[in-house]
Amino acid sequence: MSRISEPTVRRLSHYYRVLEEVAAEGRRMISSALLAEREGVTSAQVRKDLSAFGTFGRRGLGYPVEHLRGGIRALLGLDRRWRTCVVGAGHIGTALAGYRGFADQGFDIQALFDADPDRVGRTLGGLVVRAVTQLSARDGFEIGVIATPARAAQEVADALVAAGVAGILNFAPRKLHVPEGMAVRDVDMTMEFESLSYALSHARPVRPRPGRDRARA
Amino acid sequence: MSRISEPTVRRLSHYYRVLEEVAAEGRRMISSALLAEREGVTSAQVRKDLSAFGTFGRRGLGYPVEHLRGGIRALLGLDRRWRTCVVGAGHIGTALAGYRGFADQGFDIQALFDADPDRVGRTLGGLVVRAVTQLSARDGFEIGVIATPARAAQEVADALVAAGVAGILNFAPRKLHVPEGMAVRDVDMTMEFESLSYALSHARPVRPRPGRDRARA
Repeated sequence: MSRISEPTVRRLSHYYRVLEEVAAEGRRMISSALLAEREGVTSAQVRKDLSAFGTFGRRGLGYPVEHLRGGIRALLGLDRRWRTCVVGAGHIGTALAGYRGFADQGFDIQALFDADPDRVGRTLGGLVVRAVTQLSARDGFEIGVIATPARAAQEVADALVAAGVAGILNFAPRKLHVPEGMAVRDVDMTMEFESLSYALSHARPVRPRPGRDRARA
Repeated sequence: MSRISEPTVRRLSHYYRVLEEVAAEGRRMISSALLAEREGVTSAQVRKDLSAFGTFGRRGLGYPVEHLRGGIRALLGLDRRWRTCVVGAGHIGTALAGYRGFADQGFDIQALFDADPDRVGRTLGGLVVRAVTQLSARDGFEIGVIATPARAAQEVADALVAAGVAGILNFAPRKLHVPEGMAVRDVDMTMEFESLSYALSHARPVRPRPGRDRARA
């Protein structure tokens, strides 16, 4: 299968979430219309996205939930485990280390590192905090999660690269410079917060109008 | 001042972060070239973004750090406080309630709600967890943070709208339907994780090449 575009990957990720939910509800088939409605895209877009990796749907019947879920799961690489470490044992890093959602997606968080000697040796998020200077290729981590303050993020990224990780999930509000081909994804809470703050500062007041809700564009 | 575009807001948010860092380093002036370099955009883009809300820079001298920082701070609405509540007292919600970064940005997290009777009444993230059924307009929350599982997110969003919030920060991996004009920002960790997983599953191995790092596009 050829490489699919990043927006398509993101939509597949959303469809996968919907499939997990409808599977939990006991449904066995799902229509492109329902997938579309839940995600705010068109049915045609859903059919196009899903056709990209094989023929799943049957006209008039929809898609078999388990089959489609398994297909997307394999495509997204969620059918294997990733050796993962978290750097930064503050509130967010500790929460991530203890977050079951990550393990459910195949990310095995095996270590939590911090630069602060006061945190090293303590048990946080179910792990004994290790000194960040101990980060090395010997651990064989495949993914590094950065949950440090912005000013430390680049140095930590360099250390993760040196330790041989293939991908970085960055929660620090800082653009990272990494070797070409290295996969980095940013989760920038700060930026989303500030974007919200801007929107609220410049918005006209909104009044809830029950029954007249509309989907966001 | 006219309303600026969302991408511009996001770049301003990044510049603001850089300004905080250089202020902490004791710098008093900063060039558009340095702001551009740290954020991976062109100097021309920086000058255009900053010209949009007044004349800050002086040719050859750059921008006065404190003045620019104050200007962006006011523009983003970070010079005031927002009455904020968090719904969902799991790992992530609890971490958010205790996260100092939010308070620093003006988000006063005043309450933590959960649907689970086992959590209600416990002190988590420095707050006594309240039953989500108690969420009402009387509290006067302006911003609601959703940190629930995906399946509960829409119901919680409806309750927040009914309680009169003006904006929602959504950490649940689910598109929310809200009244037109309501500000919603999504922090979708799950999607970023899955996007990373996809990239790693389909990547050729990367070897670190110290000294030959390149900025990501």
